[in-house]
Amino acid sequence: MASQASRGAVVLLSGGMDSSTTAAIARHEGFRLFALTIDYGQRHRLELESARKVAQFLNAAEHIVLRVDLTCFGRSALTDTIAVPKDRPVTAGHGEIPVTYVPARNTVFLALALAYAESRGLADIFIGANAVDYSGYPDCRPEFIEAFEHLANLGTKAGVEGRTRFRIHAPLLQMTKAQIIRRGIELGLDYGLTHTCYDPTPDGLACGRCDACQLRKKGFAEAGLQDPIAYVC
Amino acid sequence: MASQASRGAVVLLSGGMDSSTTAAIARHEGFRLFALTIDYGQRHRLELESARKVAQFLNAAEHIVLRVDLTCFGRSALTDTIAVPKDRPVTAGHGEIPVTYVPARNTVFLALALAYAESRGLADIFIGANAVDYSGYPDCRPEFIEAFEHLANLGTKAGVEGRTRFRIHAPLLQMTKAQIIRRGIELGLDYGLTHTCYDPTPDGLACGRCDACQLRKKGFAEAGLQDPIAYVC
Repeated sequence: MASQASRGAVVLLSGGMDSSTTAAIARHEGFRLFALTIDYGQRHRLELESARKVAQFLNAAEHIVLRVDLTCFGRSALTDTIAVPKDRPVTAGHGEIPVTYVPARNTVFLALALAYAESRGLADIFIGANAVDYSGYPDCRPEFIEAFEHLANLGTKAGVEGRTRFRIHAPLLQMTKAQIIRRGIELGLDYGLTHTCYDPTPDGLACGRCDACQLRKKGFAEAGLQDPIAYVC
Repeated sequence: MASQASRGAVVLLSGGMDSSTTAAIARHEGFRLFALTIDYGQRHRLELESARKVAQFLNAAEHIVLRVDLTCFGRSALTDTIAVPKDRPVTAGHGEIPVTYVPARNTVFLALALAYAESRGLADIFIGANAVDYSGYPDCRPEFIEAFEHLANLGTKAGVEGRTRFRIHAPLLQMTKAQIIRRGIELGLDYGLTHTCYDPTPDGLACGRCDACQLRKKGFAEAGLQDPIAYVC
């Protein structure tokens, strides 16, 4: 930890539970946080407000909110008018890819994080990708993260010149939701600042029924901890 | 050509000479064009107007201009206030990386092109990367293009489910500027629609002295062809 005390890292911070925990872990590892929030036109814009609160809570050196309107490409329940699925079973395992999948989202996010990191002379990028509880997203798998790290070192001036060896950190990759929550609580993270629901009410209450809410509730239950946020049901 | 007659391809179209020629090649290969122009806050915004004209000229099925404000990261002569170098020798070869390098630009562009392609059910992405005349950009090298293709097939629903085998086409990769221009002219491209200069006058004249202008002029001279655009000098 001490050796990295002066180093900075870009952290992709959505304001959700996973990315907020990832940011807390990066900080615990001694990195100064350069938080990057991508506003891609997601319906749950309350996430952006959560991201601001979490960045402040974790004393980020910088927080950039970058607008990239992925809604212009369409085709995702998170960015257009396909209904968010409710009350369906959420089971761990390598099942089908959910309709909430946003095409190439983590590729886009990591590419932007890389641009940010190279601009600031930083080598480390943190992403809250998680392959266990919600394995349906192809861009949350270890082999994807490794492929991106390889690309980052080929496709940048800093990588090619050997000044920087980019590293993509995905500390949650093999953790269950309960483990993630326990780790965040250990590190003092306030999950009341985070936002999870895919389909909140206009006044910001979590629906409690979408996949994301169900996984969050299940995670807190399995961790034996109280979720500080309010749900409609 | 006939077998691809009904297929579409995403083409990264800046409005410059290389990307416009790439679009003309994609069309000649039988693809319907889904042109994607990234407005990343570049100073030469005339490129965006050129991109619109070229997309129309090539009868694109769709043209999306996506704003991604990479200027918020800073550190490039193309996006902030570092002076564009003038009158310096532009030689082929594997020399230093120019100050006009935009951090991780092609990684960001290809990631967005991938999101667009997957959203439209398309497998083919064209980029005008070129490794010969201007080899200083690390993200214009063949190994970078290959690494991205690998990533694309790992990091997408369409790739993982095996419905789509993404292919990144970089038809200019091994061509000199003169060869590119000759190919474009053969295909009927009007280079008068394209924009190249890094530092145009307010009324849109090319400076004639930046690296990009010098390479363009050299290319036309070597191709033995007349450049249809006007220069200050």
